[in-house]
Amino acid sequence: MSRQTLTIRLAERPKGDIVPDKVFKQEKTPAPTAADLKDNQVLLETLYLSLDPAQRGWLNDTRSYVPPVQIGEVMRGGAISRVLASTTPKFSSGDLVQNSGNTWTEVGIFPGEAVRPVSLPVGARLTDAMNVLGGTGLTAYFGMTEIGQPKSGETVVVSGAAGATGSVAAQIAKIMGARVVGICGDDEKARWLREDLGLDVALNYKDPDFRKKFAEATPDYIDVFYDNVGGEQLDMALKRANKFARFVMCGQISNYNKTEIVGPKNIGAVVTMRIRMQGFIIFDYAERWGEARKQLAQWLSEGKLQRKETIIKGGLAAAPEGLLKLFSGHNIGKMLVEVKNPDDGAKL
Amino acid sequence: MSRQTLTIRLAERPKGDIVPDKVFKQEKTPAPTAADLKDNQVLLETLYLSLDPAQRGWLNDTRSYVPPVQIGEVMRGGAISRVLASTTPKFSSGDLVQNSGNTWTEVGIFPGEAVRPVSLPVGARLTDAMNVLGGTGLTAYFGMTEIGQPKSGETVVVSGAAGATGSVAAQIAKIMGARVVGICGDDEKARWLREDLGLDVALNYKDPDFRKKFAEATPDYIDVFYDNVGGEQLDMALKRANKFARFVMCGQISNYNKTEIVGPKNIGAVVTMRIRMQGFIIFDYAERWGEARKQLAQWLSEGKLQRKETIIKGGLAAAPEGLLKLFSGHNIGKMLVEVKNPDDGAKL
Repeated sequence: MSRQTLTIRLAERPKGDIVPDKVFKQEKTPAPTAADLKDNQVLLETLYLSLDPAQRGWLNDTRSYVPPVQIGEVMRGGAISRVLASTTPKFSSGDLVQNSGNTWTEVGIFPGEAVRPVSLPVGARLTDAMNVLGGTGLTAYFGMTEIGQPKSGETVVVSGAAGATGSVAAQIAKIMGARVVGICGDDEKARWLREDLGLDVALNYKDPDFRKKFAEATPDYIDVFYDNVGGEQLDMALKRANKFARFVMCGQISNYNKTEIVGPKNIGAVVTMRIRMQGFIIFDYAERWGEARKQLAQWLSEGKLQRKETIIKGGLAAAPEGLLKLFSGHNIGKMLVEVKNPDDGAKL
Repeated sequence: MSRQTLTIRLAERPKGDIVPDKVFKQEKTPAPTAADLKDNQVLLETLYLSLDPAQRGWLNDTRSYVPPVQIGEVMRGGAISRVLASTTPKFSSGDLVQNSGNTWTEVGIFPGEAVRPVSLPVGARLTDAMNVLGGTGLTAYFGMTEIGQPKSGETVVVSGAAGATGSVAAQIAKIMGARVVGICGDDEKARWLREDLGLDVALNYKDPDFRKKFAEATPDYIDVFYDNVGGEQLDMALKRANKFARFVMCGQISNYNKTEIVGPKNIGAVVTMRIRMQGFIIFDYAERWGEARKQLAQWLSEGKLQRKETIIKGGLAAAPEGLLKLFSGHNIGKMLVEVKNPDDGAKL
């Protein structure tokens, strides 16, 4: 029997929380083979899928920075894959690559343009290509250095600080000489932020005294707020903003599953404190990715950047459940799905 | 009998709408005279007081860009005054000056540093010094040129477009070559915006079809939103923001009297559309005021800037009621209180 491939498609748009079995449809079909390749294509088997809060936004039928995933379309996301066959001279069978697009499939055909080689510095892990040296790290890098621009001694607050992007952003702020306060959702994460990443303060927002502790942790107010969470935490940061504060608007994970969003009632602080609140997407910095990757790799090799990953096992079938878990604080660091262990040999 | 002076002091902090007789206390006392002057002071009689939405914020006991007016303190604001006596060589009796600080008094003593000469180009009105050539015009100028930065052909939306700052900001955007949509609160104002100021579209937000008309007026979305209003209009603008839109956060008059503020639920657009939302205060640009005044005066003399003023009569006693009227859309253009007609002679 020929190889089968599991593929996950969007079945219906979620209202509120993702209900994996309703929102996604899993189907097994015969896998494409080398014989199916047209010119300039690659046949890939997926090893790891990146799980990112932004993917929740792609499921909504609203105007955004990318078109929404269509009903019936294979779910979109970042992936690390192995080349099984290629009709482009750029890739050969066995190459490890990164690909984007409709990646939620075990074996798929991708255009050569959607694929790039994995290139890692000595000592890096394969998954770093999607974590600190991939979109996650690049997001943190440009958000903190270009929009946040913390000066030495300034107070930087990072929400979602134990998440993939937040943990890198917080460490970059430390490297830049800032005093860094991280907000996260449990005490184990807070300990990691303090003890391993060296943050000055780490707060658990579920602590009943969080509001008081947040004020105490920002006695000189907030110069840079790197926001991955939105909602109440954004509102509290507005209230504690210093004049000329920069608000790096990276994400708002607390809102993505909400059907009724509550806006920040302290929005007036943007005027009175002359806040610059600015959103960004890493695509905006595409021409500078090389330079940023080099810097991140150097920090990683120097031990200045720590990273963690939370790997969902159970293959591609577990990806929808994994995506849901992003929103309940399951992960420390980067959340990935292991679709296939890279140490298992390739098979056609 | 010696001259009396009416003085208005903050009696209690307003909760919600200003109730003039509760919030302010009016008292008549013997006026200070030249004999009361110490070194480097001026004795002034007030001619005009500026009424600005920002003054509502100064009544709240909250952290802001200036300390709040204290209970019992003479109300603060911009003024045009006449020098009655002076102990500084910079000013002589009869000079027309602008002063700030605790100005809500008919006759008062001010330090020389709080006073500057009124200097107007040919053809300007005395009140222009507080309107298009004063803080109002400077606010519009720096907000639009420095933060908004509209490019030719871009869509600029101005809320509070028939107000003092909004009307100047909208015209500057026209001068810069933008397509300009103004939002105001009645049809007469909308007519003024279209017919006299030359805006491309003027919408009355009280129109039952406003939401639909707003979308129709921004078919290519919004590149610059100059916000004087906040609240629902800010939220609608977020929903219609183009990518890389600039939101000039000048004021939020719709919120100033609210005890419960509703934040913008479309705040997520800041991320997805990469909006730069930025507050500012004209103090931040103090070193460039001269250059800006020169430009505004030139536009005024060339007929490129139109301006209106709404003058509250009834003397200083009418100022609290006038301040209240700012929030009910009473004014077209700049709102002023005529404390004393400048054509009446000075009297000591």
